[in-house]
Amino acid sequence: MANLWPVQDAGPQDACETHFPSYVSGYVDGEGCFTVSFSPRPTLRTGWEARPSLSVSQNGDRAEVLLEMQRHFACGTVRPDRSDKTLKWEARNLTLIVERIIPHFHRYPIRSGKQRDFELFADICGRMSRGEHLTAIGLRQIVCPAARMNPSGKRGYAPEVILVSLGF
Amino acid sequence: MANLWPVQDAGPQDACETHFPSYVSGYVDGEGCFTVSFSPRPTLRTGWEARPSLSVSQNGDRAEVLLEMQRHFACGTVRPDRSDKTLKWEARNLTLIVERIIPHFHRYPIRSGKQRDFELFADICGRMSRGEHLTAIGLRQIVCPAARMNPSGKRGYAPEVILVSLGF
Repeated sequence: MANLWPVQDAGPQDACETHFPSYVSGYVDGEGCFTVSFSPRPTLRTGWEARPSLSVSQNGDRAEVLLEMQRHFACGTVRPDRSDKTLKWEARNLTLIVERIIPHFHRYPIRSGKQRDFELFADICGRMSRGEHLTAIGLRQIVCPAARMNPSGKRGYAPEVILVSLGF
Repeated sequence: MANLWPVQDAGPQDACETHFPSYVSGYVDGEGCFTVSFSPRPTLRTGWEARPSLSVSQNGDRAEVLLEMQRHFACGTVRPDRSDKTLKWEARNLTLIVERIIPHFHRYPIRSGKQRDFELFADICGRMSRGEHLTAIGLRQIVCPAARMNPSGKRGYAPEVILVSLGF
């Protein structure tokens, strides 16, 4: 499922020799962000909703690759980022992430330390697709790995806050 | 000359299916910067030195791809960027840029509007490799195109300053 379109259909430069899936991995290495965030949801048994996301930002005048990625993975949305003057492609649907995005980065790995973020992300999404995050014990298993992703970026709720609320 | 190493020699993930030259183009699309800067040089006939550069920055904890790029193109240096806590790979040698870097991006184009920066860069480097920038008329031909590259980034000397000093 990783290759939804052959390279020759992937954009305006049909005649070039670029292997688009490899290009995507390089682009995500530079600009992509794998995250799993947590939001309070009193109606859920654990009290928390876990949301995985792969996002890629780009200057608003260079949306082409974001639209190509949206088409390549056949998921995600492209929209303005409120925090700055960029556009962002973001995939949040767990099923589509598991079926389309994770196989891509297993097949065409990120060649920097960001691959470690991806591996944490893939493990968490696998657990979530099995429903493990719906129990306190299962949620605990993903809270700390999620916090280890993107250590230089801003975070939402500290893992300690979530763990304490779960009774650990 | 664009492919100095076959893909299977390009890094630690030898068994993966990634096409490394395409990965490089994607990475440069996200993180790369083509520039031509000008510095006063009273000893030169025009009074100005033109310096082309392709640079790619990355967090200091993720140097792997910068070192792979240095190896791939067999040129450039990897060093800390004084302005922040990043590492930068930068290629400045005109001959190596013309022989190794420009053919790469002709063969594996950047798929966003940054390709326009590359095309200006390639044209300027071609003129410089023919020595055209060593005369006032030739230098004038590259000053304005150089200023059109990376319009959102910070610039050095304004093109007007250079053109006035050249007598235009």
